[in-house]
Parts: sequence; structure tokens; C-alpha cells
Amino acid sequence: MKTSVIMPLAGACLVAVVVAAAGALAQDTDITKSKPKPASPIYGVTIPDGYRQWELVAPALEHEPLNELRTVLGNKTALDAYRAGTLPFPDGTVLVKLAWKHVQSPEFESALVPGPATTVQVMVKDSKKYAATGGWGFGRFIDGKPVDQAQHETCFACHEARVKARDYVFTKLAP
Amino acid sequence: MKTSVIMPLAGACLVAVVVAAAGALAQDTDITKSKPKPASPIYGVTIPDGYRQWELVAPALEHEPLNELRTVLGNKTALDAYRAGTLPFPDGTVLVKLAWKHVQSPEFESALVPGPATTVQVMVKDSKKYAATGGWGFGRFIDGKPVDQAQHETCFACHEARVKARDYVFTKLAP
Repeated sequence: MKTSVIMPLAGACLVAVVVAAAGALAQDTDITKSKPKPASPIYGVTIPDGYRQWELVAPALEHEPLNELRTVLGNKTALDAYRAGTLPFPDGTVLVKLAWKHVQSPEFESALVPGPATTVQVMVKDSKKYAATGGWGFGRFIDGKPVDQAQHETCFACHEARVKARDYVFTKLAP
Repeated sequence: MKTSVIMPLAGACLVAVVVAAAGALAQDTDITKSKPKPASPIYGVTIPDGYRQWELVAPALEHEPLNELRTVLGNKTALDAYRAGTLPFPDGTVLVKLAWKHVQSPEFESALVPGPATTVQVMVKDSKKYAATGGWGFGRFIDGKPVDQAQHETCFACHEARVKARDYVFTKLAP
């Protein structure tokens, strides 16, 4: 008799667990904002929300082999530091570089304008979390997805070799 | 007797007027925000406050003879219209193009970066005020001061000849 009472209870519990799990699954797939964003290997850096509304730091052009127009935007912490000349940049600084293949303007012979988007590259300052790489975490994304670990292994070495004196940041604030 | 009463009163009034005028003058010279901003000839367009915090529309490069890197920023009305594909742009749209001589990056052989600032160019949409020029007012500034009328007379003709179909706006929103 004891067994016959316990078994239906166990069955009910299993049903309850399955229903709860299905609910959680539905929530994960329905509410896209709760999805974890694609993060870069090594650093776990993601593309920050709303970065496209951030303030201009500077544009640039890359000749061969990239042939890109680029623009760096920064969050408020970044721009405040640039304007005050603060080095190193404080924790919380985030810089985002947008890049596009450059194409000939169809309306103006002397102008190059943005063509297809290529990469979005992110630098995040967290002096403790990224102590081994000058306090910076790096993320390089194509179509919103991070590129592979091998590419991310090259980020810091290049910044360290060329712009260590500017806290590893290439881009200066355009006047 | 009457005269001797009136004269001191008139004198007191004069003093009061002079003091009031001095106060007004001090206010005009002290409170710089109340100064009228330099406005472009023909159009009366000024450099908008806070434009440097506006959102990115797109960068560009100008080859010879200008040799410039440029970036267009837009106010919210402009960006909303770009994203929605609204043409013509609504009244209240303001676009600002910043330009710098491009210089070789000292840290990266393949990169051109902003050098000295050259011009700031402004387009303001007001379909009634600027009905004779496609609804756009133009302003071209060097060091915050508008260039001469002759230069402003060239703005609309060029925009009309080349990009009339895009409501006279060259710059497309970068993807």
C-alpha cells in the first residue's frame, strides 16, 4: 500500500518538474534580452548596448590591405578622460571602433565613403579583471559574432608594442 | 525754486539710467551665452550647441585637393529620419560635418588619422524659411566663424546638381 501511494506522488512531481523546465525554456527563447550576448574568447567582452549613440572620438582610414573607413566612439567615461587628458583611462572606459570597406562615392569623384560593414572592435577597461593585458579586455566582432581565439591573442601584443605610453589606446580625440 | 527741485531729480534720474545701462552692459559682456552666435551669410545658420555629442551618421575621406577626413553627425530628428528612410527630411533636421586635414598615423603605417580641424559645415532643414534652397539652410565655419557670402552661394547649387533625389543630402547613414 505504501508503494502505491508514493508512486503517484513521484509521478506528479516529475510532471511538475517537466512543466517548470518547459516554462523556463520558453522564457529563455521568448525573451531575447535575457539571452547571453556573444562574448569574445579570452576576455569575455561583448558589444555594448546603445554604443551607436555614443560620442565620436575620431575617424580614420586604413589603406591596403584593409581598405577601410573607421570611426571610434566612446562612452562618457572615455570622453571625460580624453577631454581631461586622464591616463591611464579609468575603469569603466569603453571604446568601440566601427569599420567599413571604403568605396568610391558615386556622387563625388574625390570622396571615399563607407561600404559594407566589416568589424566592430571593443576595448573595455577593467584594471583588475584584465590586469595581464594592461587593464584592457578586447573583443573583435563580425556580424555581431566574435572572431576566433587566435585573432584575439594578437590584440594586446600590437597595442603594447605601439601605444603603451598612451595606455595602449591608438585613437586620439579628434580636435 | 521749482527748477532747483527738478534739477536734482533729473540728475538722480540720469545717474540711475547710467547705473542701469552699466549693469546691462556688464550683463552682456559677462554672460557669454547671451551673445549672439556667429551666423552664416544668406542663411543665418549657426553652429548648434552640443553637436559634438550627436550621433554618428558616417565618416568619409576627401582626396586632393582637400586631403581631409570627415565625419557627419546628426541630431535625433536626422537619425530618426535616416533609420525610417524618411525623405524629405523633416523640419528640425540638423546635420553637422566636421573635417580635419588627414595626416599619417605615427604609430600605424597603413593609417590616416585626423590632423588639424579645417571646417565645420551645418545643414538645417526648415522648409518654409529656406524654401528657395530645397528647404535647407547652409553654414560653413572655420574656427567658429562663418566663411564669406561667395562661398555660401555655392552650397545649394552643388547639392542640387548631385543629390537632389536624396533631399539634397550627400551623406548616407553608415550601415
